[in-house]
Amino acid sequence: MKYFEDVQVGDVMRFGRYEVTREEIVEYARQFDPQPFHLDEEAARASMFGGLIASGWHTGAMFIRMVVEHMTPVHATSGAMGFDDLKWIRPVRPGDVLSMESEIREKIESRSRPDRGTVKIESRISNQRGEVVMSLVSLVIYLRR
Amino acid sequence: MKYFEDVQVGDVMRFGRYEVTREEIVEYARQFDPQPFHLDEEAARASMFGGLIASGWHTGAMFIRMVVEHMTPVHATSGAMGFDDLKWIRPVRPGDVLSMESEIREKIESRSRPDRGTVKIESRISNQRGEVVMSLVSLVIYLRR
Repeated sequence: MKYFEDVQVGDVMRFGRYEVTREEIVEYARQFDPQPFHLDEEAARASMFGGLIASGWHTGAMFIRMVVEHMTPVHATSGAMGFDDLKWIRPVRPGDVLSMESEIREKIESRSRPDRGTVKIESRISNQRGEVVMSLVSLVIYLRR
Repeated sequence: MKYFEDVQVGDVMRFGRYEVTREEIVEYARQFDPQPFHLDEEAARASMFGGLIASGWHTGAMFIRMVVEHMTPVHATSGAMGFDDLKWIRPVRPGDVLSMESEIREKIESRSRPDRGTVKIESRISNQRGEVVMSLVSLVIYLRR
């Protein structure tokens, strides 16, 4: 397990493989983000996006799925406080295969809680062509050894 | 419809009613954020949260659902570029009823695209006791008249 002491500013982790399906895009949109360009191929083709795209919040859900599968089992984290600077850079479309790269940007010791610290992690989610589709900076709580 | 010209810094909108169920918390967690305190009541009771809580990204999904139901039909928006300063402030639990308050914080004209502008909107999502559970600042694209 990697604790607060074990992660260093500049460390880069690459992980994840998320296959984006049309069915999942539409299912998520029906439940949470029912806008025409997330729901319906015809309507999406007539929109500025030129075809069906995933809800940005769905891409966020894919991000946390990759984090929980690959980072949570090996990093001694205790949830996140939030994030900064989330950017939706390019559309995510059916058939895309996403992966991600996370870089440790800053370590902040806690004065009030000596058993933990906050780590700023910048993540970039890319598609199968290496194009970044979303980036964000997470504020993650790490336990100390 | 409210266009870029029609929204003013300081405008406040209050809307939404989202009933959070145990079933939906567990279903979302199974698909996207399978951590014990989102999945299993027993495990959650033993965790620092003392009971089942919704994934923070699920709370984000509830936010976009309320926005699409109540704001998108009456504001001439064209999607969002991203978010700043998202904070998960308090746990969201089964039985909670969420609503939200959004305030126009800044209007930014586009030099390259005279038909649109960006509006910074700060939103606070609260539970039935009026406690803020999540806040964030959205960068929303508005069309001009």
